[in-house]
Amino acid sequence: MAGINRNYDKLSSSYLFVEISKRTKAFAESHPGIRILRLGIGDTTEPLTPSVIRSLHLGVDKLADPKRYTGYGDEQGDARLRGAISEFYSRRKITVSPEEIFVSDGAKPDAANIQSIFEQGSIIAVQDPAYPVYVDSNVIAGRTGLSKGVTYDGILYMPCTEENGFFPSLPEKKADIIYLCSPNNPTGAVATREDLRRFVEYARENKSIIVFDAAYHSFVSDQKIPRSIYEIEGARECAIEINSFSKSSGFTGVRLGWSVVPMDLVVEGTPKGRVNALWKRRQSTMFNGASNIAQEGGIAAISEEGIIENQAVIDKYMANARAIRECFIGKGMKVFGGVNAPYLWIKTPGDMKSWEFFDKMLNEAHVVVTPGSGFGPSGEGYIRVSAFGHPEMISEAIDSVKANLKV
Amino acid sequence: MAGINRNYDKLSSSYLFVEISKRTKAFAESHPGIRILRLGIGDTTEPLTPSVIRSLHLGVDKLADPKRYTGYGDEQGDARLRGAISEFYSRRKITVSPEEIFVSDGAKPDAANIQSIFEQGSIIAVQDPAYPVYVDSNVIAGRTGLSKGVTYDGILYMPCTEENGFFPSLPEKKADIIYLCSPNNPTGAVATREDLRRFVEYARENKSIIVFDAAYHSFVSDQKIPRSIYEIEGARECAIEINSFSKSSGFTGVRLGWSVVPMDLVVEGTPKGRVNALWKRRQSTMFNGASNIAQEGGIAAISEEGIIENQAVIDKYMANARAIRECFIGKGMKVFGGVNAPYLWIKTPGDMKSWEFFDKMLNEAHVVVTPGSGFGPSGEGYIRVSAFGHPEMISEAIDSVKANLKV
Repeated sequence: MAGINRNYDKLSSSYLFVEISKRTKAFAESHPGIRILRLGIGDTTEPLTPSVIRSLHLGVDKLADPKRYTGYGDEQGDARLRGAISEFYSRRKITVSPEEIFVSDGAKPDAANIQSIFEQGSIIAVQDPAYPVYVDSNVIAGRTGLSKGVTYDGILYMPCTEENGFFPSLPEKKADIIYLCSPNNPTGAVATREDLRRFVEYARENKSIIVFDAAYHSFVSDQKIPRSIYEIEGARECAIEINSFSKSSGFTGVRLGWSVVPMDLVVEGTPKGRVNALWKRRQSTMFNGASNIAQEGGIAAISEEGIIENQAVIDKYMANARAIRECFIGKGMKVFGGVNAPYLWIKTPGDMKSWEFFDKMLNEAHVVVTPGSGFGPSGEGYIRVSAFGHPEMISEAIDSVKANLKV
Repeated sequence: MAGINRNYDKLSSSYLFVEISKRTKAFAESHPGIRILRLGIGDTTEPLTPSVIRSLHLGVDKLADPKRYTGYGDEQGDARLRGAISEFYSRRKITVSPEEIFVSDGAKPDAANIQSIFEQGSIIAVQDPAYPVYVDSNVIAGRTGLSKGVTYDGILYMPCTEENGFFPSLPEKKADIIYLCSPNNPTGAVATREDLRRFVEYARENKSIIVFDAAYHSFVSDQKIPRSIYEIEGARECAIEINSFSKSSGFTGVRLGWSVVPMDLVVEGTPKGRVNALWKRRQSTMFNGASNIAQEGGIAAISEEGIIENQAVIDKYMANARAIRECFIGKGMKVFGGVNAPYLWIKTPGDMKSWEFFDKMLNEAHVVVTPGSGFGPSGEGYIRVSAFGHPEMISEAIDSVKANLKV
């Protein structure tokens, strides 16, 4: 008799973004004719750049040509793309070799699946608030107890608050796997070199692994802020980096990302290179490589020309971020983030609950935001506002907030 | 202190195809100048058809256009594609609604991940021999004991032998999850309506789930042979179907597949629709949708025009299969499959072991095949020969076998 994985029962009833889209849909249906402005999901809106488009077409053309057609590629990723990613790191004086790079269909699957190569009994630490996938994947894997409201027994939550500049202190109890994300989703905060150094030191002392999500690396404009965990000495021995073309190159729908599992990464009781080999085994057994068309596009996106082109797109999103910042500051609200990250983290007025303010924004200004409480208990009383959107739509949303939001 | 998932230690040292490519590479390096002919991996070699190529270019063009650009799509898949897949089933008088269809980046990830929505203690039954992913994914998930040579404690192996026409008897002990694949990889055998009816009946009686891998459905030419488990009455209550564009449309590198989880599928102790909802939750938490470019191509591939175009490609592969069949029969060997499937399952001469004959084929004829033993204990003494390949290469391989293989 078949049975289901009962860990799914522990999950809160729906994935945050599914709940948002449900409420938005309900509002739209009961208010026909009202234009809803979406600053909720971190979804890119600007078209792909010319060099990327050319490269994607090239990828398609190859598949039409008997001489250049390719079927299954290397599960770890096209050697040319892995070379280009290695080159991308080396331009920033970081050494990551192609065999340490695993091309994937995006940062989300990697962030969700990476836990599966570690011990079932691993103690997981996450920033609070955090991107839900880190926690949910570990809930499904059975590493937690039941949900207690918005938290789960067995997860170490590291609060990110106004007091600590939204970067956490070291975990209070021993953690085996520590998820860090900088520039941060959802708070828009960035970790300084010193912040990351402390965690790398902790990880090396406690033989923990840091899973570093760098998906928003290209939004960092401050030259002193690390864009990769490997800018920190010793990180190659304790950190896996997850990265993405989604936000830096508009590939949210194209699906392409990568993870770095350094050969130097050590887990007690296993030889050097074992974790790299495990992830390789995981990917070659349970994944079959990213689309060869997407990978062809990725090669262009990560070239020097592609990065320059994409910087112009990022500048556009960051101009949105500045305008949104000013709007909410103008409303007398406390605004964080949005400087080295495409997300703004905004304190609700008068200690309103996140979902309450979500409904208020939707009802009064017809603007969809993301309730901070959906990212963890310390997110309660905040909303996340995304700077992704066409400038015209962003202006319209700002005007509507200015005119209609009563705070 | 972090530790690794020790279930990986149970896996045999490498994934079958990795081992093949290692041996092939070693041979190539020690025999420079010798052209190696590959009939090993089931990888498509013929270019994509015109309507698919046009649609893929359209997919790229949309991403260049501010008005048509799309980022994240529905994790379950583009509604147009799910509609087209539903339509594809209905042309064959099968009712599958779009909300029962989950578009993915291929049948392999789905075949690997589907186990994760079921109980940890589930008893798994597989055809022996079988595509390695069914077993390996369950080993990694911790559902087995240690490996005993080529089998794992805790897995029910259902032998597929010459005696039973390579379709198994019902499992001897109670099985919770039963993996079936028809047309079969690796044996090239097809299940009759009666074969499948027996399993559906067993599953309904024992409240088991059948995971039916139909990735090779389009190679069935015999009109009496089912191409979908849902051609069998009652299957909607007990079967999940995994399907793919890889082999039917040459999408091995493009990455696109789908799974069907019927609303009627029942697992004891859960309401109707719960398994569908679980898979939806799994996919929306741990996956982010297939590439929008690939999905645009998929819409063309599964249209009536696309299917007609692709049939011509399949006919080409099946002409290869006939030629390979004749060649090995001419060598006095016993050949199975290759009629409604792109794989031939060939008995080694003189009770030679599979890997021994693999080496002999490589050394004497310079032809790479797949050792049957890599697919399970009952595969010992067989090789799998793939009919995927350019006709010229296939002819060359056949000529080389005829001239150089000493049997």
